[in-house]
Amino acid sequence: MQIERTLKSELIYEGRVFRVERLDVELEDGTRSVREIVRHGGAVGVIARKPDGKHILVRQYRKAVELPSLEIVAGTLEAGEDPAECAHRELLEESGCTAASMRYLGKLYPSPGYVSEEIHIFLAVLNEGRAAQNPDEDERLEVLEMSHAQVEAAMWDGTIRDSKTLGAWTMYRLHAPEDFPR
Amino acid sequence: MQIERTLKSELIYEGRVFRVERLDVELEDGTRSVREIVRHGGAVGVIARKPDGKHILVRQYRKAVELPSLEIVAGTLEAGEDPAECAHRELLEESGCTAASMRYLGKLYPSPGYVSEEIHIFLAVLNEGRAAQNPDEDERLEVLEMSHAQVEAAMWDGTIRDSKTLGAWTMYRLHAPEDFPR
Repeated sequence: MQIERTLKSELIYEGRVFRVERLDVELEDGTRSVREIVRHGGAVGVIARKPDGKHILVRQYRKAVELPSLEIVAGTLEAGEDPAECAHRELLEESGCTAASMRYLGKLYPSPGYVSEEIHIFLAVLNEGRAAQNPDEDERLEVLEMSHAQVEAAMWDGTIRDSKTLGAWTMYRLHAPEDFPR
Repeated sequence: MQIERTLKSELIYEGRVFRVERLDVELEDGTRSVREIVRHGGAVGVIARKPDGKHILVRQYRKAVELPSLEIVAGTLEAGEDPAECAHRELLEESGCTAASMRYLGKLYPSPGYVSEEIHIFLAVLNEGRAAQNPDEDERLEVLEMSHAQVEAAMWDGTIRDSKTLGAWTMYRLHAPEDFPR
């Protein structure tokens, strides 16, 4: 597979959530091009399943698409944070739930064409009960409990359009087919 | 659902593929915050199924993640372009294939937390045969033919990590369950 060598890298913007770089690259045949890249420190996404089989999802307003978005629990890795620890932390902050088990399903790239972010996907089997949420100061999250069939109906009718949620669901089915009724 | 009102918008960077804006927003309870947003004009993704049931996927080096990435056919909408036209165009350019039918499955958001891009997902049933590819000047694409089971094995073992591909696969299963062996 042909790789692309970086000739020069220029920092365009250093933000709170990401930074932007502009790279001059050279392909193996000598062709030169420019790649604009959004650098992001990575995140986790958690498929959260209750003992009764229902799923916990969160709904929040997403300014980038100017819509409320229904998604699995997710959040950004702190510097040096272990992804599994982050998964437990975000689960508790966003939903008030704790996990009896936290299984790693792998990672996905939300937008590998121009974003460096990788999202580590976990499958949490939750403990009974739910404490109060404790989201970030500027986060407003609504917690929903949905059956497996309700989640799939929302994916079918376009209520769920978030790619990490839809993508994690494919990973979930392939790694835990026993949870998918036939 | 609480929405976020834009108080001020500042253009940070105007690039080739995206631009970056920094927004001051106000939540409904008066809390103020900053949202950094990557604006992107939108794209299409095409699940491409041959008459013999095999799938066409493309592999290319993705500089943002410094890895070769195996993905469904995809590409960026030109200004004013109809998504279905774009799907036919990208299918031909990237794979050399034409479609006998092009069914719209809906759209997904690759990264709604900070990217505005929406990706329109199509299911193409291909015609027989394949012409030469005609990718963009700085694109190097490898075309692969994979059985349904090979695609799912690659999703299971982490060879496929692209969220539009994994997410589109969930949409595909829910809209065309007859293609999924039980």
